[in-house]
Amino acid sequence: MFFSLSHTDADSWARAGVIHTDHGDILTPIFMPVGTVATVKGIHFRDLRNDIKAQIILGNTYHLLLRPGTAILHKAGGLHKFEGWDRPILTDSGGYQVFSLTSLRKMTEEGVHFSSHIDGRKLFFTPENVMDIEREIGADIVMAFDECTPGTADYQYAKLSMERTNRWLDRCIRQFDDTEDLYGYRQHLFPIVQGCVYTDLRQEAAKRLRDLDRDGYAIGGLAVGEPEEKMYEMIEVVNEILPKDKPRYLMGVGTPWNILNAIERGVDMFDCVMPTRNGRNGMIFTWNGVMNMRNKKWEDDFSPLDPSGTSFVDHDYTRAYVRHLIHAEEMLGLEILSEHNLAFYLELVRTAREHIIAGDYTSWKASVMPQLMQRL
Amino acid sequence: MFFSLSHTDADSWARAGVIHTDHGDILTPIFMPVGTVATVKGIHFRDLRNDIKAQIILGNTYHLLLRPGTAILHKAGGLHKFEGWDRPILTDSGGYQVFSLTSLRKMTEEGVHFSSHIDGRKLFFTPENVMDIEREIGADIVMAFDECTPGTADYQYAKLSMERTNRWLDRCIRQFDDTEDLYGYRQHLFPIVQGCVYTDLRQEAAKRLRDLDRDGYAIGGLAVGEPEEKMYEMIEVVNEILPKDKPRYLMGVGTPWNILNAIERGVDMFDCVMPTRNGRNGMIFTWNGVMNMRNKKWEDDFSPLDPSGTSFVDHDYTRAYVRHLIHAEEMLGLEILSEHNLAFYLELVRTAREHIIAGDYTSWKASVMPQLMQRL
Repeated sequence: MFFSLSHTDADSWARAGVIHTDHGDILTPIFMPVGTVATVKGIHFRDLRNDIKAQIILGNTYHLLLRPGTAILHKAGGLHKFEGWDRPILTDSGGYQVFSLTSLRKMTEEGVHFSSHIDGRKLFFTPENVMDIEREIGADIVMAFDECTPGTADYQYAKLSMERTNRWLDRCIRQFDDTEDLYGYRQHLFPIVQGCVYTDLRQEAAKRLRDLDRDGYAIGGLAVGEPEEKMYEMIEVVNEILPKDKPRYLMGVGTPWNILNAIERGVDMFDCVMPTRNGRNGMIFTWNGVMNMRNKKWEDDFSPLDPSGTSFVDHDYTRAYVRHLIHAEEMLGLEILSEHNLAFYLELVRTAREHIIAGDYTSWKASVMPQLMQRL
Repeated sequence: MFFSLSHTDADSWARAGVIHTDHGDILTPIFMPVGTVATVKGIHFRDLRNDIKAQIILGNTYHLLLRPGTAILHKAGGLHKFEGWDRPILTDSGGYQVFSLTSLRKMTEEGVHFSSHIDGRKLFFTPENVMDIEREIGADIVMAFDECTPGTADYQYAKLSMERTNRWLDRCIRQFDDTEDLYGYRQHLFPIVQGCVYTDLRQEAAKRLRDLDRDGYAIGGLAVGEPEEKMYEMIEVVNEILPKDKPRYLMGVGTPWNILNAIERGVDMFDCVMPTRNGRNGMIFTWNGVMNMRNKKWEDDFSPLDPSGTSFVDHDYTRAYVRHLIHAEEMLGLEILSEHNLAFYLELVRTAREHIIAGDYTSWKASVMPQLMQRL
């Protein structure tokens, strides 16, 4: 069994479960740090494992194809071996880059032509070759190739885009099921529900995907320009249809409060660059609120970065020191804040899980939300 | 007693000793990682302590004055508290910036006017206020304010420069001895021998400084443009005169082989940005030679970065992976190579010390030099 559901909250759709992979179990709900180019920016794998306590990390197919390339990854025995991470990995499919690199790509029914953002090299992504690439990368969970539809798309575009994503999905499944795991462990293909902010499109896609009976499902095309309330609404629309006994992955989301709200709506898996990207910009998330470490108010605050934090950086470094590093544009500042944020995100979902199991998720969430969201 | 000499090599001037400070002992010969702006670039203090096994680190007075500034450092209770490092610290005096920031400074007998390299802010460094600043920073060992004379200076300039440095030294000593330790532990002032590549100037300076009977001495103005052989020659000239019972610090040097050669000539302390700077540029030092991690030859070398290395990075990461990170300009690559190089430098001096104590320093050095210097 790939997914076992341990607890379902009585007052909400929140669930606690376990995803079983050949690289170990993943306790859900889970946040997955983003390791774009085979590295979670600035973070040692040792710390990802022991300090941040990541259970699964991401890799980005588009970026890994450009560097180091599949030949090297294959020769290494897959991404796990290449980067030295023996826990589960999930790869996206390049579908997000169809959205984010609009000016560098041209979409056809057959697939997407990209000009590499690094050297202009021509790349052609099809459902079939993306599956082949993800086989070579060798993640435990691989995403189907889709178009991440912009959150601002009109109904007509969203419908055509969703339908094409679904046709691509059929091709992905055919290719994936026709090919073998390359490295002796099992890979699992997750389809992605698109449909933008349109209820009927999301429902149509969710139903179609549900009937395919895959190991897990992703909700894509959210947090890409639509209003936040629409995002929550679409999560509900989709999760009402997706099978309860399969894990649900909300792609690219989000803030700590986005995550708690989505857990309440039945989401099990999350990824986002926010903890590392915002960390590099001097912003951290804590149980007491959001801190901009650039602010002058921290200049002579010699208390620990986050006294309630679980990472060593929270206790080894003071706010005044971290502010200094950020102002001096020192690497160590980026490392500290990325490490803090990732450790916090993992603690967030771990604590959410505890409360789902304890049966008080909804009241716990209500009690922590105001502090989480405040600016310190 | 500030310095105790444990062993002196029978076949060379190499010595093993212990420097006693209120922040703990330092076993010499020692290499001191450079923590310019209160951070050894990219390296967590935890790793500096446990993985790299640094016993003492540097801070740069000029850079610390600009950021975070002495007001914050004083409020924190000194640099140790500010950066969270409880082992010894040494600060330079800004004398190196007199050399390296030529276009941004104007020198007079009274002191040196700088325009900050960051925002053009005017700074005036005098022997007196540099002592005051170093008191506020609070390093265990503080350097006198000098001019680091360029290695290419003519005799006349070098003579005037050395004489001015010596007059500044008298002012430094007066100010230092007239002021108190600010934070409850003892600070020690080291004079700096200048004199460029001119034997008689070096001898004159060394004799004058020897007679001042301070706790330790530095040799400055080397590795700043002069031929390498001249550097070794000047070290010998100076160390023949400096007292044997005081530690000798060769400022800003150098490669692993520079360090072993200087140890042979009686030097006890070293600092250099090379391990971190070269690391950031993709170059590492190992017992087997120098490796440029950008090279294509490492592209599919899945063996550990340095199988004989003492750092966790040497075993957690492969050469192929590190090469990938350097090519992708990923922070983690810089972190890994800086960490490796610093751990290697500390292992280098630790091993040198063991061989001095064992009594076979000279033959050991001869046996490792060819490999150390080769390009892999």
